[in-house]
Amino acid sequence: MIPMPRSYAVIGAGAVGGFYGARLQKAGLEVHFLLHSDYEYVRRHGITVESVEGDFHLRHVHAYRSATDMPACDVACVCLKTTQNHILPEILPRVLSPDGVVITFQNGLGIEGDLAAIVGSDRVMGALCFICSVKIGAGRIRHLDYGAIKLGEYSPDSVPRGVTTRMKQIGEDFRSAGISVELAADLLLARWQKLVWNIPFNGLCAILDADTSRIMKSPSAVQLVQEIMHEVAEAAAAHDRIITEEFIRGMIYSTRKMAPYSPSMKLDREKGRPMEIETIYRRPLHAARERNVPMPLTQLLARELESLEEIIRAQGSQERKEASLEE
Amino acid sequence: MIPMPRSYAVIGAGAVGGFYGARLQKAGLEVHFLLHSDYEYVRRHGITVESVEGDFHLRHVHAYRSATDMPACDVACVCLKTTQNHILPEILPRVLSPDGVVITFQNGLGIEGDLAAIVGSDRVMGALCFICSVKIGAGRIRHLDYGAIKLGEYSPDSVPRGVTTRMKQIGEDFRSAGISVELAADLLLARWQKLVWNIPFNGLCAILDADTSRIMKSPSAVQLVQEIMHEVAEAAAAHDRIITEEFIRGMIYSTRKMAPYSPSMKLDREKGRPMEIETIYRRPLHAARERNVPMPLTQLLARELESLEEIIRAQGSQERKEASLEE
Repeated sequence: MIPMPRSYAVIGAGAVGGFYGARLQKAGLEVHFLLHSDYEYVRRHGITVESVEGDFHLRHVHAYRSATDMPACDVACVCLKTTQNHILPEILPRVLSPDGVVITFQNGLGIEGDLAAIVGSDRVMGALCFICSVKIGAGRIRHLDYGAIKLGEYSPDSVPRGVTTRMKQIGEDFRSAGISVELAADLLLARWQKLVWNIPFNGLCAILDADTSRIMKSPSAVQLVQEIMHEVAEAAAAHDRIITEEFIRGMIYSTRKMAPYSPSMKLDREKGRPMEIETIYRRPLHAARERNVPMPLTQLLARELESLEEIIRAQGSQERKEASLEE
Repeated sequence: MIPMPRSYAVIGAGAVGGFYGARLQKAGLEVHFLLHSDYEYVRRHGITVESVEGDFHLRHVHAYRSATDMPACDVACVCLKTTQNHILPEILPRVLSPDGVVITFQNGLGIEGDLAAIVGSDRVMGALCFICSVKIGAGRIRHLDYGAIKLGEYSPDSVPRGVTTRMKQIGEDFRSAGISVELAADLLLARWQKLVWNIPFNGLCAILDADTSRIMKSPSAVQLVQEIMHEVAEAAAAHDRIITEEFIRGMIYSTRKMAPYSPSMKLDREKGRPMEIETIYRRPLHAARERNVPMPLTQLLARELESLEEIIRAQGSQERKEASLEE
């Protein structure tokens, strides 16, 4: 469906886009990076990835400050924070070839629908990233653990779309870059499964100002995590996506085993940046309410995060003013 | 009932005991301070109060490191953090004269009952402090705003005890020290009323790492505060203590007007010290559960604070090791 070799546009070169984009380029694929505040640095010095799988440096990357200057690509990877998605209607039509697809690498619910409104629902895919990585400076990504992605097709009517040819093709590109790829026949199930982790850990790490390993050492916090996971599972079940006890136990187990990690929301709190409350909390809460599923713990966590964000905004943090495409 | 002039033992010379004890001594009353880590400093240099009502310095105070060395006093004011109340069974019998009474100046529910178990239920009173003050160093108290106390008799069967002679007498002592005193015929009502403020603000200020003025500038946080206040009011109502809408509105109004303030629980979080979760949260939650009153927001807030405390404890903060009688 999509010609080979496929070209990639990477929108935002932070912890996620910087890592996957650099790995694709290192594997020989054509990658074009749309950058904002890091543009000058990356254009001159390229991208460095410090990775548990081996460090590498890309001296030359195709860096752009404006989508207008970019070539039309076969695949556009949206790797912004969702709080910046309002810039996408300007960008996506410019960077996508006529048959191109857009893949959101972002967390939360309902993002594919937003993208479909821009490019059409048959040109949208979602990728769930299971990665611990952080941008430690301009063009500088630290990859701490994991790295797999789960790729699936957007379905406007929520009926699983199965595994398509282009999923396989794009999956092969990522595999050629050493990325572990799972093809998800049911993207919505994958989204809810990811939320089972994101909803408790993003919020509690931000609110309690603790990384995952500190959370896992507090019996009270682990108890909260588990109860919140069950709230998410019940909301998912109301949307015909079954999340088992075993799945939840596995999440707890792997979080306990993984390197100490600060989810992006905790870093956002520290830096005074907007947090992804809308896509990670408000939309799942809305989806639960549609089916009369109460999520009291999730609800309060969301309200605390909103309070935190209002407090941070009122403080008028300097870092917030420097918020950029890459963050 | 109690001879005049009355002598006072002040247990703990932190933000509360340091302020009220110093004011009583300044007014000419006999005051004996039981200190721990600040003992040496206070014995040599006395106590300084930087106050909105005028700074003053007491060069000489009766300072003790051990209750064994103290004279028996007519009134013992317990001004410790409740997290240190386990040391009181050793202390109170030594510092109280045969007719002496103990007054807890602490926050939360059920403390009088604990003290009654030590000295007998007819020798216990409670004082609610409406004060913004902070210990800024050894023997150094900063008084930021307010300062009134509400004094009442402990009632083991929860029936209001009315205004007693000794309440009037002790009230007069505090008034002579320029402290505004209200005599509460129903101590339990006063306790619940105080909790209407403490439960939302202590917890949210600690969790959101924000002082009262920052909380009041966040519409989402104010909404949370109000809902938590209503949870407390419903629990109080189930114990026949009526807290009106007007009272809640008044609390919100006066918090908005007061100087920015960090409740002790927020400072405890910052310093890695134990927080008063048991008396301010767990006991009111228990009282609510006894009457089948749900307090979902309060409940989650308590669980988050417990998580926070476990996380802080695991960090093995240096400050915690220095936790002392005065804190």
